[in-house]
Amino acid sequence: MTDTTRVLWVNPIGKPAYDDPMGALMGGIKQRDTRVDVVSLNTRLLPDHLEYRTYEALIVADMVRLARMADGEGYDAMVIGCFYDPGLEDAREISGGTVVVAPCQASVQIAANLANRFSIIIGQEKWAVQMRERVTAYGYAHNLASMRAIGIGVPDLQKDCDFTTARILEAGRRAIEEDKAEALILGCTCSFGMNEVVQKELGVPVIDPILAAFKMAEFLGGLRRQFGWTPSRAWSCAPPPEAELAGFGIFSAAPPIGNRVSY
Amino acid sequence: MTDTTRVLWVNPIGKPAYDDPMGALMGGIKQRDTRVDVVSLNTRLLPDHLEYRTYEALIVADMVRLARMADGEGYDAMVIGCFYDPGLEDAREISGGTVVVAPCQASVQIAANLANRFSIIIGQEKWAVQMRERVTAYGYAHNLASMRAIGIGVPDLQKDCDFTTARILEAGRRAIEEDKAEALILGCTCSFGMNEVVQKELGVPVIDPILAAFKMAEFLGGLRRQFGWTPSRAWSCAPPPEAELAGFGIFSAAPPIGNRVSY
Amino acid sequence: MTDTTRVLWVNPIGKPAYDDPMGALMGGIKQRDTRVDVVSLNTRLLPDHLEYRTYEALIVADMVRLARMADGEGYDAMVIGCFYDPGLEDAREISGGTVVVAPCQASVQIAANLANRFSIIIGQEKWAVQMRERVTAYGYAHNLASMRAIGIGVPDLQKDCDFTTARILEAGRRAIEEDKAEALILGCTCSFGMNEVVQKELGVPVIDPILAAFKMAEFLGGLRRQFGWTPSRAWSCAPPPEAELAGFGIFSAAPPIGNRVSY
Amino acid sequence: MTDTTRVLWVNPIGKPAYDDPMGALMGGIKQRDTRVDVVSLNTRLLPDHLEYRTYEALIVADMVRLARMADGEGYDAMVIGCFYDPGLEDAREISGGTVVVAPCQASVQIAANLANRFSIIIGQEKWAVQMRERVTAYGYAHNLASMRAIGIGVPDLQKDCDFTTARILEAGRRAIEEDKAEALILGCTCSFGMNEVVQKELGVPVIDPILAAFKMAEFLGGLRRQFGWTPSRAWSCAPPPEAELAGFGIFSAAPPIGNRVSY
Amino acid sequence: MTDTTRVLWVNPIGKPAYDDPMGALMGGIKQRDTRVDVVSLNTRLLPDHLEYRTYEALIVADMVRLARMADGEGYDAMVIGCFYDPGLEDAREISGGTVVVAPCQASVQIAANLANRFSIIIGQEKWAVQMRERVTAYGYAHNLASMRAIGIGVPDLQKDCDFTTARILEAGRRAIEEDKAEALILGCTCSFGMNEVVQKELGVPVIDPILAAFKMAEFLGGLRRQFGWTPSRAWSCAPPPEAELAGFGIFSAAPPIGNRVSY
Amino acid sequence: MTDTTRVLWVNPIGKPAYDDPMGALMGGIKQRDTRVDVVSLNTRLLPDHLEYRTYEALIVADMVRLARMADGEGYDAMVIGCFYDPGLEDAREISGGTVVVAPCQASVQIAANLANRFSIIIGQEKWAVQMRERVTAYGYAHNLASMRAIGIGVPDLQKDCDFTTARILEAGRRAIEEDKAEALILGCTCSFGMNEVVQKELGVPVIDPILAAFKMAEFLGGLRRQFGWTPSRAWSCAPPPEAELAGFGIFSAAPPIGNRVSY
Repeated sequence: MTDTTRVLWVNPIGKPAYDDPMGALMGGIKQRDTRVDVVSLNTRLLPDHLEYRTYEALIVADMVRLARMADGEGYDAMVIGCFYDPGLEDAREISGGTVVVAPCQASVQIAANLANRFSIIIGQEKWAVQMRERVTAYGYAHNLASMRAIGIGVPDLQKDCDFTTARILEAGRRAIEEDKAEALILGCTCSFGMNEVVQKELGVPVIDPILAAFKMAEFLGGLRRQFGWTPSRAWSCAPPPEAELAGFGIFSAAPPIGNRVSY
Repeated sequence: MTDTTRVLWVNPIGKPAYDDPMGALMGGIKQRDTRVDVVSLNTRLLPDHLEYRTYEALIVADMVRLARMADGEGYDAMVIGCFYDPGLEDAREISGGTVVVAPCQASVQIAANLANRFSIIIGQEKWAVQMRERVTAYGYAHNLASMRAIGIGVPDLQKDCDFTTARILEAGRRAIEEDKAEALILGCTCSFGMNEVVQKELGVPVIDPILAAFKMAEFLGGLRRQFGWTPSRAWSCAPPPEAELAGFGIFSAAPPIGNRVSY
Repeated sequence: MTDTTRVLWVNPIGKPAYDDPMGALMGGIKQRDTRVDVVSLNTRLLPDHLEYRTYEALIVADMVRLARMADGEGYDAMVIGCFYDPGLEDAREISGGTVVVAPCQASVQIAANLANRFSIIIGQEKWAVQMRERVTAYGYAHNLASMRAIGIGVPDLQKDCDFTTARILEAGRRAIEEDKAEALILGCTCSFGMNEVVQKELGVPVIDPILAAFKMAEFLGGLRRQFGWTPSRAWSCAPPPEAELAGFGIFSAAPPIGNRVSY
Repeated sequence: MTDTTRVLWVNPIGKPAYDDPMGALMGGIKQRDTRVDVVSLNTRLLPDHLEYRTYEALIVADMVRLARMADGEGYDAMVIGCFYDPGLEDAREISGGTVVVAPCQASVQIAANLANRFSIIIGQEKWAVQMRERVTAYGYAHNLASMRAIGIGVPDLQKDCDFTTARILEAGRRAIEEDKAEALILGCTCSFGMNEVVQKELGVPVIDPILAAFKMAEFLGGLRRQFGWTPSRAWSCAPPPEAELAGFGIFSAAPPIGNRVSY
Repeated sequence: MTDTTRVLWVNPIGKPAYDDPMGALMGGIKQRDTRVDVVSLNTRLLPDHLEYRTYEALIVADMVRLARMADGEGYDAMVIGCFYDPGLEDAREISGGTVVVAPCQASVQIAANLANRFSIIIGQEKWAVQMRERVTAYGYAHNLASMRAIGIGVPDLQKDCDFTTARILEAGRRAIEEDKAEALILGCTCSFGMNEVVQKELGVPVIDPILAAFKMAEFLGGLRRQFGWTPSRAWSCAPPPEAELAGFGIFSAAPPIGNRVSY
Repeated sequence: MTDTTRVLWVNPIGKPAYDDPMGALMGGIKQRDTRVDVVSLNTRLLPDHLEYRTYEALIVADMVRLARMADGEGYDAMVIGCFYDPGLEDAREISGGTVVVAPCQASVQIAANLANRFSIIIGQEKWAVQMRERVTAYGYAHNLASMRAIGIGVPDLQKDCDFTTARILEAGRRAIEEDKAEALILGCTCSFGMNEVVQKELGVPVIDPILAAFKMAEFLGGLRRQFGWTPSRAWSCAPPPEAELAGFGIFSAAPPIGNRVSY
């Protein structure tokens, strides 16, 4: 076992355009001994965002396939790069020794160390119910001051970053003043690059979910290496038997990777 | 609009062997004006049961495709025929005017009208955590006396029905006596045909999830026809825009149906 | 056992004026094989509405007596026709083989199949706390977007239906827009006849509690006939011993029925 | 306003046999300036215990009538003398300036000042679900270590007090050792006279619900006199309008009192 | 054992200025047989209010020392005189036979007997999170209509009582009208002397935490004397062994009392 | 700003014996760029363990003083080295830019990434209630399979490590088999050095709280350095005003450090 912690970041869509910028972002913040690979999917007919449950359903099977691959290739941790954390529990079942991490859970765990109550800034009101279910499932409902929507869909979040940032600032300010939020979480992996200015302007911690998820993966991947803290395989964490998997031939095809970059 | 309520029952696996027996079962208990179609999936490399999250992840996309089809073909209600209720929320988003129903939710809703506390008889301890999450999400955690496992996996439930029934009787008796259950739910759509004898023997209501889900679908499908109670499309229930769906070409392929029988 | 499902609808007040219109309403929406009887109470000195706990307390004993009668006369299901669901748990204990249903529980169970979050439109702010307790007891607190009062007491709800409908529309619109409700429930059995226009106008499912409760009773009554799913009599569901009942003479008097109509 | 705090204790059954012993008991523990009146009901055909919901339903209307009377006669506090706390919320609505108290709520409030977790010793397993609902409604579910049944029905609790006490001791010991209870509550107003020996034997506080309820009523009645802390009449606490009450004639008959003793 | 109930009121700060006015207040409302002693702390370098967690942390050890002393001197009950209830659980562990009471818990227990929902009027928004945690821990989160801040810090609450009262009136009125509060609790022991006028003006019960806590201590102290209901010492309530305490010498110094007055 | 992350580990007792072994342990697992300082307290008359609330109360003020010092000396993160997490919220208020971490919260956050349900192995039954409150406050009550006590007090945990390990193995095995735990957390910072063998023997992740807390502090300290994610100071996180602190002179004395070692 080498000293390198290996993280697999999955862009759970079929468009590789974000792979390099995200990889570069992570390459700039990783520890010396970490290696991060960024992949996107090879499947045609995929949406280029996951704003709807309909779209997420289309990529959940790929999350399972990539978790299987991550274990086979010896990754210490894998990240499902969408704030809905799609397929997290499924991927965790089949990931073998690889720790699977997702942005929403990573963000709320970090935020709870910095503030008693936080708000999540979301793109559209549509997201609120599903994300609140996630936050509740992770145990942080009592820390959630509010969800505040900025009225911008995922595909448009990076179109005019100044506009998006202005809307985040406005929503964040209201979350702090009206909902008594003490910290903010940006509720989409497509708002990257905006947290610093918001944090500086509003004076509270602003958690970017890409940073949170990547660093959490690096952290937990490191713990795995140091202390053998790999995922449990007992009871509800047990994977299907290998013989059955072989019989069904489910993982006989190549992993659904369309693009892979390393940093 | 005719007077016929049309129900689509989905066997969410790629093996059609259960289609006819299930169709015949439902054909025997439906109302005169109901028509039920049973389908299974056409996809190769599928598991023939869904005992693991890994397997469920592989069919979630098909649930979405079938919900889309159900709406297009004018079904009043569709059932996802697995007690884990896989993909229920996803299918509900895209089902248009079709009401989507699943066995676990249908069973607990019915049981709560008959008893204050019920137990779920499950095949293996492995299932307990995930099913408890479902029951909790539906709001019935306080009604759950216990989960009791009989130590038989899904593929073996119908192999020796006398043996399975004996194990259910034993687990059910302990649920009643030790956990103070007042009713029982059979926690797998593969335990069909066993509830009557258990109910007769133990003297409490025993809910079979196939019966519960099919009749609930017929009921809600009828309400849709009578009162226009179709699924909400507001806020978290909003589907993706049609134009975007067309652009991604997600639903351009034929629905993933391998077999369809009508009763 | 014939094929007819028999439902007893109880107007839990001492005025028979609503019996015929309600019977006619249900007669028009029932299935062919259903027979519904509507009764009101014979007791003098009763309020003609149940807007206060004080009034409900006065009729709870009669709900128990009627549940006893329903069982004796072989009704498959009985409905307590008030959205507070008064005496539901008490009536369920003594109802023998008859399934007891009530409007609030029936409405939230149906609504939860159609939307993730719903609001209840109530007559007066006064009702909110007690109804929220009911919704919470049934497990649906997390689905409740809000209670919205229209400022009209029960006795006036049917006085000027256009005015009442206008207030429901206004409250419903605010529930949808401000509270993010995705469906509406009308929180009184005296708002009957108004749900269609509200549903059409606002574009979300609008559940009328009379329709919901009657159809749920017919549904569960049918399940009883088909599958023997009668109420549990185990543990907390156990009724008093017959010998003790006879000794106390509690049910020796005639049932407190003032009027009975059949449809 | 004199300095005397007046408490009305209601034995919510139609048999006066317990009135004098209970009155004597309270007379012996009251403060100098307190006067306690004990009443039982005059209604024929009543059960002589309230072990079933069916029976409780029969006396709820009388609780409302007595609360009305208590206010009219200037009682500072009234107690509904049954550990199910039947009709508590209803009586509170109409009690005017009289504070209404009940044994279960009084007992858990006191116990929570003495221990972090307590068990309730009940007569029969049948009671557990309903009493747990009460404890939960009062906010003390997280303090409830367990319910332990001794297998004795209400009518037999005072038949052989040594036997009952022995069973309470056994159940209490198991509650402490197995369920980690730190205090005990006796879950029936018919176990009076047994708490001292149990407390001495087991070495933890043992709350008798008669003592708890009576002293809480005396306490809150005193606060009413000193600080004007009468029940709220706002929002959900609002009673019916007096004009409407007069119109219905509900309270025109004499209060349903069969026996009244003063101490 | 005499008939006198002895209560120790602790002003948990190092300034004795409030001791006499508080003692006089309690002296005026106590029962004849009660004796109340008021103490403040002797420690230098203490804050003169406890508005911050930082300050509370500085006095928690003294609460433990005083609880030890209270037991040694035979007090029946002790009150920690701050609405944050600082150190309550710690003091309860070591208080031996003395019942330890605190204003927030006492206030919500009393309020829940008078109203279904109440609001707490706090000085500054800062307090809301911590006090809500307290209310939640006591089991009354579902009764909490709101926290309403008046924008005045603890040191200024008694500076201009007319101004403070006016702000409480304004906040209380909004709590009632907007948050549907049915009763109010004043959320600081430094708002004493203001509840009467607010109660008279707003027409709902207004609980002053000093009155609530003192009378609750007197009440529970009396129960201890009458029924032997002393704090449990089982399981989580067990104190450290005496031998260990002696070994550490923790309680060898004199209690940290700077001033003591008796009434 | 240098690249070194600085962590302050506080042994919250007055005995320095553990400082060096703990420092050496952390020195062996830290990242290259981390520096860890271990301190114990200088106060006489302190207990040498914190198994009782009484003892914890005695050191809470010192946690506040050390958090103040940590900020003043530029530590990125501080750990309160006891699994009860004593004074965590208080220290967080006054820690300025230093992130304050504690073992229980760190352990459950990590465990929730590795398993759905975990048990905590505690020394004595006494601890269970308080630690469950902690776990609940952090949002992980639904992940807690059980607390299992090994019947060894804190002072004896390191006396015979083989014996302690054997008891942990036994309790852990029962937690897995009977309570269906999928991972274990050792519930005391004095069980260090035992997790590896337990993990190897039982085959599930075994979280040692010292490792968890130290690595979490290093992780969050690093995030602070990289992304400016310092603790929020808004609303409930606001510290006392500096002027007031100066006026009270609270922090004028030297920090209560008895020993400091660096690794």
